[in-house]
Amino acid sequence: MDAHTRLGNALRGLPVDRPPVWFMRQAGRYLPEYRKVREGRTFLDMCRDSDVACEVTIQPVDRFATDAAIVFSDILTIPEAMGIEVTFEAGEGPKLHNPLRTAADVDALRRPDVADALPVVPETLRKFRAQRPETPILGFAGAPFTLLCYMVEGGGSKDWIETKKMLLSEPARAHRVLDLLADVVGDYLQLQVDSGAAGVQIFDTWAGILAPDEWQAFCLPSIQRALARVKGAPRIHYTRDNMPFLHLLKQTGADVIGLDWRVDVARARAELGTLPIQGNLDPIALFGPAESIRRKVHAICDAAGPVGHVFNLGHGVTPKTPIEGVEAMIAAVKERASTSAR
Amino acid sequence: MDAHTRLGNALRGLPVDRPPVWFMRQAGRYLPEYRKVREGRTFLDMCRDSDVACEVTIQPVDRFATDAAIVFSDILTIPEAMGIEVTFEAGEGPKLHNPLRTAADVDALRRPDVADALPVVPETLRKFRAQRPETPILGFAGAPFTLLCYMVEGGGSKDWIETKKMLLSEPARAHRVLDLLADVVGDYLQLQVDSGAAGVQIFDTWAGILAPDEWQAFCLPSIQRALARVKGAPRIHYTRDNMPFLHLLKQTGADVIGLDWRVDVARARAELGTLPIQGNLDPIALFGPAESIRRKVHAICDAAGPVGHVFNLGHGVTPKTPIEGVEAMIAAVKERASTSAR
Repeated sequence: MDAHTRLGNALRGLPVDRPPVWFMRQAGRYLPEYRKVREGRTFLDMCRDSDVACEVTIQPVDRFATDAAIVFSDILTIPEAMGIEVTFEAGEGPKLHNPLRTAADVDALRRPDVADALPVVPETLRKFRAQRPETPILGFAGAPFTLLCYMVEGGGSKDWIETKKMLLSEPARAHRVLDLLADVVGDYLQLQVDSGAAGVQIFDTWAGILAPDEWQAFCLPSIQRALARVKGAPRIHYTRDNMPFLHLLKQTGADVIGLDWRVDVARARAELGTLPIQGNLDPIALFGPAESIRRKVHAICDAAGPVGHVFNLGHGVTPKTPIEGVEAMIAAVKERASTSAR
Repeated sequence: MDAHTRLGNALRGLPVDRPPVWFMRQAGRYLPEYRKVREGRTFLDMCRDSDVACEVTIQPVDRFATDAAIVFSDILTIPEAMGIEVTFEAGEGPKLHNPLRTAADVDALRRPDVADALPVVPETLRKFRAQRPETPILGFAGAPFTLLCYMVEGGGSKDWIETKKMLLSEPARAHRVLDLLADVVGDYLQLQVDSGAAGVQIFDTWAGILAPDEWQAFCLPSIQRALARVKGAPRIHYTRDNMPFLHLLKQTGADVIGLDWRVDVARARAELGTLPIQGNLDPIALFGPAESIRRKVHAICDAAGPVGHVFNLGHGVTPKTPIEGVEAMIAAVKERASTSAR
């Protein structure tokens, strides 16, 4: 079975020879070939050049023969296209220089035409498809709530106090921004499908900071609105810390649910039924012995069952991850061919 | 109903006039009177002086008329008593200077006699009881796994790579430390009960970083072992991010389960049955308008039901929390008297 069929079938809940495998942040700093390209360039330089983005997108595909690529980019290109100045300070994560705090800040947001404002990812998708036609490539975007978090807070945060203050004190304002973001995110994901993405993933990294009632009020409607705009390829939903609202994730309209590593896969199956799932090895498990990685991979695949499972980590791979750990994970997933045939 | 009866009954699932209310880290930097005592002293200075510890323990009780005090101390006094050097760097959190990495590091750990090695908290409990006899006071300790995290990592961490490496590569060594910690933690909690604590809380702050199989292998047995050593007062279990293993928390042997703010209280009730619960307002909700705080408090109390519920935050109060937010929360819980009588 070729990788296109394997990934496409798994994302649609159709039979496969074994689960496809790719992993979040697979083009990243844990790879020496990535660090070499990164030298003398900022992270945003790399995101803005489709030749460079394509090169690093290809690296893990060539090294590990993953069943999918994920386009190299960053979720903060959308806020940037809407008029927020974004920089990355070394070792400090993103900084958004004009955060949304007042009604006037919200009024000043632009609604970009995504094809004009965000051309790099579509170009990268086309270049990848020309250079590695045998491997499917996924697109992605940040979810509206996660983008709102960065845009209001002005960067990463431990407690997200400013964001939560907006939800509590100015809910109508928050909904206005979330609706706008949902439309832009939806259009951007559709643009990626139209540029050849075999599927798209929406990352709601920070949704897990919310109590269940706030998640239902702010996250769920904005995810629904964004995903409703996307046709023609499977749409994957991913949130860190998604156990508290796992039972509600069917309502997002997503075709595939990504699982945080803290989610018990058997319970997720019971909750989600036949909805395809993706995940969910703890990224830090890759620092362990090969035999422990192999055992954990097989336990996840056993619990997920042979149909409707895309193997992945439960969160992005971390910069210091040993390559041998990644190799052990990939090898174990590829052993599943014989297991399923038993 | 006096506070002793109200708290004692709620912790035991017996009828109350309204839920008792206290909150995690209630003696802390959000209070101007605390910041005044803190001036010119390090955090550890305060933990080492039972007069100072008693003074700040009393502050929120006097200001808000909470239904319980929690003794002022830190969970890292146990590692210190076992031979780990602990300091707090300004703005950086704890630093443990000789982290556990090798078998020899583990061999060097002392098993302290808790009454000799950790006299400050028992003294503080006795002083508080003499000065505020009308208010019950709770004791606490860090859970074995959370203490292991700090002791192996040498401080706080985002990914806890060193700790997880020990679990993956040297599980027998990890179990050896966890067993030792469980015995010390259990003895220390019993010492606090013997010194007049009306209940004790075990904080497994970092248990939520583990995948469910690792939680069952490392956290659960060490909590069981610690709690089994404690008799004569209700034992409260608290973990951040506890939704993934909420259904297993009955097995800890705890008398009361603390809920993270991401846990839906109605689902917790369904999962835990009549086991008393504690929680679970998002600490950041206290930054919102008074009316929103009031609505959230009532929603939590309605979902919890009138019996077997201790009102609390879902995590510790944060340093910048507005006092008015805390006042609105306490006032709303105290309104429950009339609600329950309806």
